Amino acid sequence: MADETKKWVLMLTAQTPTNIAVIKYWGKRDETLILPINDSISVTLDPAHLCTTTTVAVSPSFDQDRMWLNGKEISLGGGRYQSCLREIRSRASDVIDEKKGIKITKEEWKNLHLHIASYNNFPTAAGLASSAAGLACLVFALAKLMNVQEDESQLSAIARQGSGSACRSLFGGFAKWIMGKNNDGSDSVAVQLADEKHWDDLVIIIAVVSSRQKETSSTSGMRETVDTSKLIHHRAKEVVPKRIIEMEEAIRERDFSAFASLACADSNQFHAVCLDTSPPIFYMNDTSHRIISCVEKWNRAEGTPQVAYTFDAGPNAVMIARDRNAAALLLKRLLFSFPPPSDSDLGSYVIGDKTILEDVGVKEMKDIETLPPPSEANTQTHKFRGDVSYFICTRPGRGPIVLTDETRALLDPETGFPK
Amino acid sequence: MADETKKWVLMLTAQTPTNIAVIKYWGKRDETLILPINDSISVTLDPAHLCTTTTVAVSPSFDQDRMWLNGKEISLGGGRYQSCLREIRSRASDVIDEKKGIKITKEEWKNLHLHIASYNNFPTAAGLASSAAGLACLVFALAKLMNVQEDESQLSAIARQGSGSACRSLFGGFAKWIMGKNNDGSDSVAVQLADEKHWDDLVIIIAVVSSRQKETSSTSGMRETVDTSKLIHHRAKEVVPKRIIEMEEAIRERDFSAFASLACADSNQFHAVCLDTSPPIFYMNDTSHRIISCVEKWNRAEGTPQVAYTFDAGPNAVMIARDRNAAALLLKRLLFSFPPPSDSDLGSYVIGDKTILEDVGVKEMKDIETLPPPSEANTQTHKFRGDVSYFICTRPGRGPIVLTDETRALLDPETGFPK
Repeated sequence: MADETKKWVLMLTAQTPTNIAVIKYWGKRDETLILPINDSISVTLDPAHLCTTTTVAVSPSFDQDRMWLNGKEISLGGGRYQSCLREIRSRASDVIDEKKGIKITKEEWKNLHLHIASYNNFPTAAGLASSAAGLACLVFALAKLMNVQEDESQLSAIARQGSGSACRSLFGGFAKWIMGKNNDGSDSVAVQLADEKHWDDLVIIIAVVSSRQKETSSTSGMRETVDTSKLIHHRAKEVVPKRIIEMEEAIRERDFSAFASLACADSNQFHAVCLDTSPPIFYMNDTSHRIISCVEKWNRAEGTPQVAYTFDAGPNAVMIARDRNAAALLLKRLLFSFPPPSDSDLGSYVIGDKTILEDVGVKEMKDIETLPPPSEANTQTHKFRGDVSYFICTRPGRGPIVLTDETRALLDPETGFPK
Repeated sequence: MADETKKWVLMLTAQTPTNIAVIKYWGKRDETLILPINDSISVTLDPAHLCTTTTVAVSPSFDQDRMWLNGKEISLGGGRYQSCLREIRSRASDVIDEKKGIKITKEEWKNLHLHIASYNNFPTAAGLASSAAGLACLVFALAKLMNVQEDESQLSAIARQGSGSACRSLFGGFAKWIMGKNNDGSDSVAVQLADEKHWDDLVIIIAVVSSRQKETSSTSGMRETVDTSKLIHHRAKEVVPKRIIEMEEAIRERDFSAFASLACADSNQFHAVCLDTSPPIFYMNDTSHRIISCVEKWNRAEGTPQVAYTFDAGPNAVMIARDRNAAALLLKRLLFSFPPPSDSDLGSYVIGDKTILEDVGVKEMKDIETLPPPSEANTQTHKFRGDVSYFICTRPGRGPIVLTDETRALLDPETGFPK
């Protein structure tokens, strides 16, 4: 190690997607190791629209581990960050960077400090699983920096200890988090069910729903559910295992009807056990309910499901359309019922893959106002202007990658501090 | 029978309370006989504030069975009315009215037609179990008119066939509907657990919540839940039986803490299985959620429950306060958070037992605007003006009675037609 200079900085930047569960994780059997009471299955979202970028750096000049999230320094003192850092450090290997003339041995990693900078390309507070992408990215980036030899599943067990659902963000396409049986959590890992090319018809539309209510954190929420709900254990033991098998088959066979009916039922059941908690937990609000009604009504009118919906620990709707045509027809319905507030502009009301707006026939704001009511809506054509903050159009996406383009780094290669 | 004149009309007027379940009925094992999948327990509400008054009349001059609800003729063709009329007629006894010189034998009842007029002293469409009180009143009034010898429990099995929860309205105080085991429903009856004097500290406040949404009828809702929910059977078989035992004990011992925690948990679980239905059923809305949060927060701040809440198949909150003092403190909180719209007046915003307003310190509308925020509310002091239509203050009440004051009759004693 070029100790005499203390000047070198070694760094690496990675990008990791977020994911949305279609069979839900709710309830831990071990709070510290984050071991769940049932398996879960997720779809990975395209990192082009929703991802975390993390740069990790190591230098003998750093005097402590530090982290910046979206440009603001945050504490690494929490047990979850510490678990991830400890687990990754203990698996570090020798690293040689010949170009820079740096050699770090396996043993030296324990005494070197890290700088971490992380950035979400979507609003952190919007309830879009930013911690899943964030912790997965932290673990992935550190593993690459430290030359950790473990595969993605083994890394997923580390990310899991940072944020349960983060383990599923180590894979593209469709991932399953196997709950495992071991007390040490070693078999509680994520595996890939299918990559993002397997079922590339799917189009995803997210409605970010305005909310005034302070939400129960998922950590305390699931603890209260496990402690007080009389239904959660029946769900975890009797209902979910069957759904996992059926969902795996639906994904394998690209059976959208089965996929949609399982995803919707499981989302609703997750919110049902939240409601069965004492005191009850409400994550969905009237807007969420209206979106569900809109989708259910249309699916029923079509005779076969066009769109699945799923809601995490908040009011936002994640809708998965069977194909681009269905997605355009869905967005048309959503824009009709939830037009933007008058001070908004189209470019910030529909973000992500905006090309779908062409299929909807919407080129500018005024086109939204002239959208016809959906044929199945009959009398219920009330408009709920402003109840949706914005829509994100995306699709299933790939897993974590290392960004080799150094201009994407969030830390200065010379100083190791945020740019 | 004075057949030659055809002029006589024999009639009787009865008044029957509505009831609110604190352990909920949701799901039938027999749709025609209306046999439930679990026991339920209810509190009878004071008929002074919420009741049905029904006048039944018989005359040889009537050429068909007819019924008027709140002054408007309605069809008696539905299977449920027909079940009740058939069951009651088959149990009729000889009736002699010496004053009027009328004698009707057991056999003659089958060939005589009935006029029925029914009136609710509260809005029918407000989702306040008007059908429970209505069907109970119909059965009770006819039984008295026709000199049916059955006791209230036996009558409850008839009312049950008109509207399931009607069977519990045949008793004051607290009633239990025993699900029964027999296929013919003969043992699916209501019994009284305690009369209205047993626990007369309780004060009940109902928030009638404004709603734009069309609600799923409870008949079709519970059918869909039984058919599609993966949680309802666990609830009916494993959860409710224990709660019934605990709730009976809580009522017997006047243990308000146990009563409140069971009532709230069971209401929430009922709504949880509605949400677990496919497609999901939402009866509570954001206002309902806010009322729950308000009560839960206050109960937590007090350390011991002051108020229980329960919601039926709609957004209205029924809140049961441990005593008048708690009720006044509750109403103060509710009026603070849900002030009346500016065009409303106090007399129509708080109805029922208005004397409680004195305890709240509210004499006129402007007093509501100066109510202080509840001490436990800290920052969340947003006002939701207009989200509650009105409040009803009431208490547990008595069972059905015959009204001997003929001026209360809804039919003309000469013609047998609505006055």
